[in-house]
Amino acid sequence: MNHNQILNSIIKPNNSKIVLIVMDGIGDIRNKNYNYKTPLEYAKTPNLDMLASQSVVGRMIPISYGITPGSGPGHIGLFGFDPMDITIGRGVLEAVGLGLELKKGDVAARCNFATIDEKGNITDRRAGRIPTEKTIELCNILKSIKEIDGVEIIIKPGKGHRFVIIFRSNDKKIDSLINDTDPQAEGKPPLKANGKNDASKFLASVVNKFIHKGFELLKDKNPANAFLTRGFSSKPNLPSMWDRYKLESAAIAAYPMYRGIASLLGMKLLEAPTSIEGLFETYVKNKQKYDFFFIHVKGTDQAGEDGNFESKVDCIEKVDKALPILLENKPDVIAITGDHSSPVAMRAHSFHPVPVLIHSEFSGRDDIIYFHENACNNGGLGFFESKFLMSLLLANARRLKKFGA
Amino acid sequence: MNHNQILNSIIKPNNSKIVLIVMDGIGDIRNKNYNYKTPLEYAKTPNLDMLASQSVVGRMIPISYGITPGSGPGHIGLFGFDPMDITIGRGVLEAVGLGLELKKGDVAARCNFATIDEKGNITDRRAGRIPTEKTIELCNILKSIKEIDGVEIIIKPGKGHRFVIIFRSNDKKIDSLINDTDPQAEGKPPLKANGKNDASKFLASVVNKFIHKGFELLKDKNPANAFLTRGFSSKPNLPSMWDRYKLESAAIAAYPMYRGIASLLGMKLLEAPTSIEGLFETYVKNKQKYDFFFIHVKGTDQAGEDGNFESKVDCIEKVDKALPILLENKPDVIAITGDHSSPVAMRAHSFHPVPVLIHSEFSGRDDIIYFHENACNNGGLGFFESKFLMSLLLANARRLKKFGA
Repeated sequence: MNHNQILNSIIKPNNSKIVLIVMDGIGDIRNKNYNYKTPLEYAKTPNLDMLASQSVVGRMIPISYGITPGSGPGHIGLFGFDPMDITIGRGVLEAVGLGLELKKGDVAARCNFATIDEKGNITDRRAGRIPTEKTIELCNILKSIKEIDGVEIIIKPGKGHRFVIIFRSNDKKIDSLINDTDPQAEGKPPLKANGKNDASKFLASVVNKFIHKGFELLKDKNPANAFLTRGFSSKPNLPSMWDRYKLESAAIAAYPMYRGIASLLGMKLLEAPTSIEGLFETYVKNKQKYDFFFIHVKGTDQAGEDGNFESKVDCIEKVDKALPILLENKPDVIAITGDHSSPVAMRAHSFHPVPVLIHSEFSGRDDIIYFHENACNNGGLGFFESKFLMSLLLANARRLKKFGA
Repeated sequence: MNHNQILNSIIKPNNSKIVLIVMDGIGDIRNKNYNYKTPLEYAKTPNLDMLASQSVVGRMIPISYGITPGSGPGHIGLFGFDPMDITIGRGVLEAVGLGLELKKGDVAARCNFATIDEKGNITDRRAGRIPTEKTIELCNILKSIKEIDGVEIIIKPGKGHRFVIIFRSNDKKIDSLINDTDPQAEGKPPLKANGKNDASKFLASVVNKFIHKGFELLKDKNPANAFLTRGFSSKPNLPSMWDRYKLESAAIAAYPMYRGIASLLGMKLLEAPTSIEGLFETYVKNKQKYDFFFIHVKGTDQAGEDGNFESKVDCIEKVDKALPILLENKPDVIAITGDHSSPVAMRAHSFHPVPVLIHSEFSGRDDIIYFHENACNNGGLGFFESKFLMSLLLANARRLKKFGA
């Protein structure tokens, strides 16, 4: 038996409520420009510190030592799956994030409008970052191509210059083993789509025909006279949060990618205002309806990727300030952590362990009275892989029976 | 190569002595009714603290994150086996705990005397908790059924209303894949035994015949006019402590289940007085005869399950007070830990990591000068799975060669 098989055999539903707050990219390293403090150390966080003093803390390794997670693997781990085993393609993430429902066998691709010159070479991979409204208009033009060789084509505009295509076939087998047509460089033409097996070779020919027809339709639409396709992928075979944990689950996340991941796991997508208070207020409104709430805070990651220490501190302080909304409507179990670190000094996701806090009647409390990376090094949870977090939350919620006599 | 294969290749026996003290269910969480201390923090333990200051400490995860171990899996881990791989059935545990020797192929079941009404429905699953003497008397009646369809039937009374049956066949194959006949509820009749393959179907028919004959014999013995069978199981294929570690091993444990586990691992069962001093004195008397001593302290778990903080503290203080008996006859390696946590506030086994201490000439010592959960968070052993403890003890005893050149 392995961990997941045991878990599966001991699930015991009850009426407890669990809230998982994911401060995206929260982990950081001490910054020489800010008196060698991390943003969590620097920020004034009386509420988080009070909660830490009544909780057990530790650090989580999102994937494995030295491995920097993308947002997909980072979240997959948080929800108790092994991110080394499960890949969610970028096309799938974008599609479900935009609210498209993927059927088994569908292939999704994320696309950018782009500019090509008269020789067919790319001059701007993002078509001058055309606004969303323009993308909607252009997508309506492309939507006139409804089907190619029996494969249905579904198009949905995203934010800015981005859109998504779903390829759906009812009779012929199609497969996502297709290269990106984006050459990741300007001055070159878009690549041809190529498949690696019969089903993907067939779909690649459909993709190439779609690109040919699409470019014809866009030829006068400079700067958006072309598009690039990436991340061909199909829906992974994931059990839902209900199937796996017997948790009726809801996501309070504003950004498409996180909504997408949540929806793949069968979470109900709740309204997600952009303010931090709004996220917690949505929880309060829906508290009775679900067992598990995933609350996603994007600002910390954005600030890390922008290299903006003060903006990261500001976002942390906003979470701290809004925390009483949650604490006054306290669920049985609260966890606060991140999907990965995004150190300001690196301006990118990183491999560093994330701080984690678990609070429940049975979490116990350790000697740690602050919620930040270095305090969490000495907490009662030790260091562990993110994929075990869900088991700890279920255990704290007394939703797991004893294993063995 | 995996850990166990390496271990197997580097075992190097010597004359060192190892003592493992298992304070059952020792781990706890800070208790709001006792100034937010754990029983280990609250107890006065000058001897344990002195030993901690000369030792290295840490925390062990009995099975895996969030998984609450039963006593079987908890101990299996302590003795260096992976509790996810090895299941010891409850029938087997009871049988060996009562001193019965199981042969390969035997099937054991644990039984309760129970009360049924004239319609055959259970009115008391424990027959009014009849005393052990009554159970002995009733077992003597059941023992008149010596054999059914060529299957030998061996009966042994346990404590209170409990007894054990062993089914043994010399010529026909029998198998333990049989459901409990205990419906786990009153107002219902006992269930029929059903098998899942040929060998268990055959045994199930023997079990049903035995139950039919047995109830006939007991029909005037109200309140014990019936019995329920549970935990059908056969002896797992475990190597002995000698085979695995080249350790002549002895158990000083008073309770049947722990004696049972020890005997499955080929440990000699020594006399185990109920006093803590008695346990240590048994060690002193037998010190020269064995390499490894498993000393089991039950009181800490009992107190945890009873939700009795003060009783847990009292048991800890008794261990502390008796510790000099061990220290004056110091083995080369001492380990003190638990098989799992049993927090007073939960009145049950739990998933929380247990504190662990290792003392030897080569253990090293860290900064930690107390033996309790939160001090152990920061010890030199870190957090690790219980299944690795035996390797650390062997290494401290210099019973492991270098791996690789």
